[in-house]
Amino acid sequence: MTVPVGIIMGSKSDWPTMKHAADMLDLLGVDYEVKVVSAHRTPDLLFDYAKTAHERGLKVIIAGAGGAAHLPGMAASQTSLPVLGVPVKSRALNGIDSLLSIAQMPGGVAVGTLAIGDAGAKNAGLLAAQILATSDADLMKRVDEFRETQKNTVLSQPDPRIIE
Amino acid sequence: MTVPVGIIMGSKSDWPTMKHAADMLDLLGVDYEVKVVSAHRTPDLLFDYAKTAHERGLKVIIAGAGGAAHLPGMAASQTSLPVLGVPVKSRALNGIDSLLSIAQMPGGVAVGTLAIGDAGAKNAGLLAAQILATSDADLMKRVDEFRETQKNTVLSQPDPRIIE
Amino acid sequence: MTVPVGIIMGSKSDWPTMKHAADMLDLLGVDYEVKVVSAHRTPDLLFDYAKTAHERGLKVIIAGAGGAAHLPGMAASQTSLPVLGVPVKSRALNGIDSLLSIAQMPGGVAVGTLAIGDAGAKNAGLLAAQILATSDADLMKRVDEFRETQKNTVLSQPDPRIIE
Amino acid sequence: MTVPVGIIMGSKSDWPTMKHAADMLDLLGVDYEVKVVSAHRTPDLLFDYAKTAHERGLKVIIAGAGGAAHLPGMAASQTSLPVLGVPVKSRALNGIDSLLSIAQMPGGVAVGTLAIGDAGAKNAGLLAAQILATSDADLMKRVDEFRETQKNTVLSQPDPRIIE
Amino acid sequence: MTVPVGIIMGSKSDWPTMKHAADMLDLLGVDYEVKVVSAHRTPDLLFDYAKTAHERGLKVIIAGAGGAAHLPGMAASQTSLPVLGVPVKSRALNGIDSLLSIAQMPGGVAVGTLAIGDAGAKNAGLLAAQILATSDADLMKRVDEFRETQKNTVLSQPDPRIIE
Amino acid sequence: MTVPVGIIMGSKSDWPTMKHAADMLDLLGVDYEVKVVSAHRTPDLLFDYAKTAHERGLKVIIAGAGGAAHLPGMAASQTSLPVLGVPVKSRALNGIDSLLSIAQMPGGVAVGTLAIGDAGAKNAGLLAAQILATSDADLMKRVDEFRETQKNTVLSQPDPRIIE
Amino acid sequence: MTVPVGIIMGSKSDWPTMKHAADMLDLLGVDYEVKVVSAHRTPDLLFDYAKTAHERGLKVIIAGAGGAAHLPGMAASQTSLPVLGVPVKSRALNGIDSLLSIAQMPGGVAVGTLAIGDAGAKNAGLLAAQILATSDADLMKRVDEFRETQKNTVLSQPDPRIIE
Amino acid sequence: MTVPVGIIMGSKSDWPTMKHAADMLDLLGVDYEVKVVSAHRTPDLLFDYAKTAHERGLKVIIAGAGGAAHLPGMAASQTSLPVLGVPVKSRALNGIDSLLSIAQMPGGVAVGTLAIGDAGAKNAGLLAAQILATSDADLMKRVDEFRETQKNTVLSQPDPRIIE
Repeated sequence: MTVPVGIIMGSKSDWPTMKHAADMLDLLGVDYEVKVVSAHRTPDLLFDYAKTAHERGLKVIIAGAGGAAHLPGMAASQTSLPVLGVPVKSRALNGIDSLLSIAQMPGGVAVGTLAIGDAGAKNAGLLAAQILATSDADLMKRVDEFRETQKNTVLSQPDPRIIE
Repeated sequence: MTVPVGIIMGSKSDWPTMKHAADMLDLLGVDYEVKVVSAHRTPDLLFDYAKTAHERGLKVIIAGAGGAAHLPGMAASQTSLPVLGVPVKSRALNGIDSLLSIAQMPGGVAVGTLAIGDAGAKNAGLLAAQILATSDADLMKRVDEFRETQKNTVLSQPDPRIIE
Repeated sequence: MTVPVGIIMGSKSDWPTMKHAADMLDLLGVDYEVKVVSAHRTPDLLFDYAKTAHERGLKVIIAGAGGAAHLPGMAASQTSLPVLGVPVKSRALNGIDSLLSIAQMPGGVAVGTLAIGDAGAKNAGLLAAQILATSDADLMKRVDEFRETQKNTVLSQPDPRIIE
Repeated sequence: MTVPVGIIMGSKSDWPTMKHAADMLDLLGVDYEVKVVSAHRTPDLLFDYAKTAHERGLKVIIAGAGGAAHLPGMAASQTSLPVLGVPVKSRALNGIDSLLSIAQMPGGVAVGTLAIGDAGAKNAGLLAAQILATSDADLMKRVDEFRETQKNTVLSQPDPRIIE
Repeated sequence: MTVPVGIIMGSKSDWPTMKHAADMLDLLGVDYEVKVVSAHRTPDLLFDYAKTAHERGLKVIIAGAGGAAHLPGMAASQTSLPVLGVPVKSRALNGIDSLLSIAQMPGGVAVGTLAIGDAGAKNAGLLAAQILATSDADLMKRVDEFRETQKNTVLSQPDPRIIE
Repeated sequence: MTVPVGIIMGSKSDWPTMKHAADMLDLLGVDYEVKVVSAHRTPDLLFDYAKTAHERGLKVIIAGAGGAAHLPGMAASQTSLPVLGVPVKSRALNGIDSLLSIAQMPGGVAVGTLAIGDAGAKNAGLLAAQILATSDADLMKRVDEFRETQKNTVLSQPDPRIIE
Repeated sequence: MTVPVGIIMGSKSDWPTMKHAADMLDLLGVDYEVKVVSAHRTPDLLFDYAKTAHERGLKVIIAGAGGAAHLPGMAASQTSLPVLGVPVKSRALNGIDSLLSIAQMPGGVAVGTLAIGDAGAKNAGLLAAQILATSDADLMKRVDEFRETQKNTVLSQPDPRIIE
Repeated sequence: MTVPVGIIMGSKSDWPTMKHAADMLDLLGVDYEVKVVSAHRTPDLLFDYAKTAHERGLKVIIAGAGGAAHLPGMAASQTSLPVLGVPVKSRALNGIDSLLSIAQMPGGVAVGTLAIGDAGAKNAGLLAAQILATSDADLMKRVDEFRETQKNTVLSQPDPRIIE
């Protein structure tokens, strides 16, 4: 089976965050695979995963990690596919360490970084779909529809004082 | 003329940074357009730019801004195309304000954020090319070659004590 | 109906914070309207709101948002009315991202920024009233009275060890 | 002579920053006075200044200070006029201390805080004018014109690569 | 009654923190007074308190406040007595704003700043006693004894694994 | 010779900062000694210095250090004299590391912390004099005079636009 | 009894964190001793501990402390043995103060710093074992095995969605 | 040739920093090798370097990198040898990103982190020597002598006011 998006994360404990990426892809009808791949504990698996990603048919990799978060950047070091990084909220520093570890890549190896935590994971799923949609008009339409729905949800509840 | 990448920035003073995105696209043989579009001073232009981007044939938008950097997020609010954000180094806070203003987007509207400054701009160009390469095998090859060259440059100069 | 103050916020979830602005305006006898207007999910609504604010009779806009908080600055980009920004406490970074996203505006488009969270919202209501009071002697008197009462509350309970 | 805006600052060394507030008021045709008033070295002067501001005809106070910047908040403690605070860039911490010292006011005494440094000072002048313009249609027109000009300056130079 | 130490705080809600200063003074047999004095809500009271402190027989002032914490610095602006500042933990930023607002005083008006929160309040009491002890040999002895006891408490429980 | 104030610093390179403490003491007519005492390179000297400080007649210790600045806290661990800490601006982090290393002492051993850099050193000299002045009416008068002069300097130059 | 590793900490309250260092050493079969040694409350004990560490047969010291964490650096000032520092999470600032106080040592006295909190303590135990293993092939084998097991645990549970 | 210490760095531009590690090892008579190994540009070389380090006779690895500094942690993921990390000062954020990227490793893979910049590199060399000295009495003696010399340099120049 070939899927276009691979979601990887450094630890099982990252799943409650990264699930939001999967949920968004489900919503937009984009197939994906999910795997725990630890940069520090299973580095060879990470390299193998990233090196073979293109030939296995993946088109975008979403990588989530916390603290000294090396997973997204190291995945990016081994593939020419676009890599999106999700900074998972860390225990002591609330994810500012994760954010800097992912975003501050040196010139030459890129990671598209999203926000810390759930919102970032959700948006990683969305951005992955947007990337695929640059060559998939049907998916672009589904992204447009998602955004239209999202807009209408806000418009239909203009008064914050009313509790539905 | 239709180009696949649009590079916008909040001010002419952002060009020395954003030039690195253009240079990378030049290197990889990707066409682009460059324009000053200020979220705060020309908001209607920004909305017009982002709303018409898809129909004008753009596939990826690169937006650079500093301080309370709203350009990337507001561009993303008006298009389903992938938007990449470059935090330009700010005068007082060295770009940490730019980084947080761009990266910490709420769930539902995504910006792929790169590093602060020149390295981030260079990588925005690279990531834009990687995104386009997901449906352009020739470009993917050129990205692979760029990375191969980059690797070989390091490998050919293993001793940092020797000054070329 | 014409009211002088518009309170807008990026999400219904900002209401528990922004309610403090409304409460202060109630206390000072200043009319206001309340609306959810999302910079990222309903950008056209935001622009329409800000562009028509003056002609609809608004005199001050209070805008609250969290994370990459673009609402106050983007409202300010479309109106010459004074805009006050309230940084809502964000989940990961406690509102320091909201504060920088609102306060660090470039020269030429201004937002008067208040403190993070409830105190900031309360003070946004107060500052809006103070602004209106520059041309409304009765309101200035009510502001003076509020402050007098506030002072007397402190003065009447000088000993922190006594629990009322 | 009665002027509507008072610009105060903690030290003569703040003038190169605060000058930008004065320049903006000049541009918009708003009269102002300028004075060094130190919260820590001349506290009685500060209290006298703030307490008599209203009766002397001032309508808005702009206060700039750096480091443990108490001037704006303490001015606000002694007047019901709107007070705008400009965090001056500090030597060691680049003004993040100034920003927090000014913005994080407790509920009940408000300061409208602008950006750190020159941009913040410029915007303090602009916001003061916007406040006055809520009851001065002519001034509102001049603010509108300033913004129109500012917009057109950006629009007339869309290409950042061209050096004028 | 003349007491050598005055403990002031910006709000009743600071008492659970500032109580630790009082407890330490009790332990060391130093008299003190306790009062809520708000820099922002009761500025005249603050100035009166600080200006008359010396003539009323106070020798040291301990001032605790949170957020944009102006109380210690403004007390110091009106008295030549030593002022010790306690940064109270703030709701959003955990007291880093309080710490910078108190510590970063400009040259010419000094505040001796302690740690954020309970430990800082306890140490403010201790340092006040140490200051008084520079001219009170008996008190110096009591300080020595407190520290001896404190040392012996640690020495008597060397193994952290044993739960008393 | 017995002097009341000891100024110590971790390195000769701290002198340009710590000189401001000495200058202030000179101005106020307070005798002092100056010595390089490194917490990390000469720990035994530090302990000897602090342990014998009281018996040698010192009444206040001023300690300046940068980075992981342990000098003030470790001096305080070995004497009951009041210790004032000056965070010297560090090369990478501008002294925020120095500030936290000095201010965040645990309950039971106190350091009165001043601002980062020159202003902090100047104020350490001032605060040391204020401490001594609690039992020296003549010195208190000199402190009062210094502050009066300082006030008058500001008052005599109210207009920041005039360059003397 | 001679053990190769000494684990010290500033307070009994650090034990829940530092226990993770002990657990790791237990797992790897490395003997150790555990002791509360406070830099600030028992400085002489600390110096005695560090000065005699080598002659007592210790080979590595692990020191954990929070806030203005001086224990690791001051231990390092009195011994040529390698010292590893664990920044314990502090109450107000979540350990960023601890981290900077430990890591930012001046050139000439080194501390190998680990992560804030439990992970850092665990890794301090691991790194101590790795250091000993440089001259103990059997221990190196046990370290290798620990890492192999750790890797296999990740590899055996690749799907984060399955809850064991 | 077998040397006990390997110094690697992410870029030639890190050499002016990392040179201080080499200088310290020279001073202490410890052999080492120096190589540019980029985590992101030459990931396979990094893995090969780290995996073969033990069999090639290395005993300690010193790795320096800046920004999203993944080199030390990824080296540690592939070897059981002790790895020391040096955060190189980064252009925008002065190395706080480097520090967090290196220090905040998850439990199970350890990096001993030194200070940002030159001091950290110097101390990495020193700590590497201290590690080797745990099984090399001669080297331990040289480390002791280095520290004795360092101490005497401070002791011989007690007065910071005298310029040699």
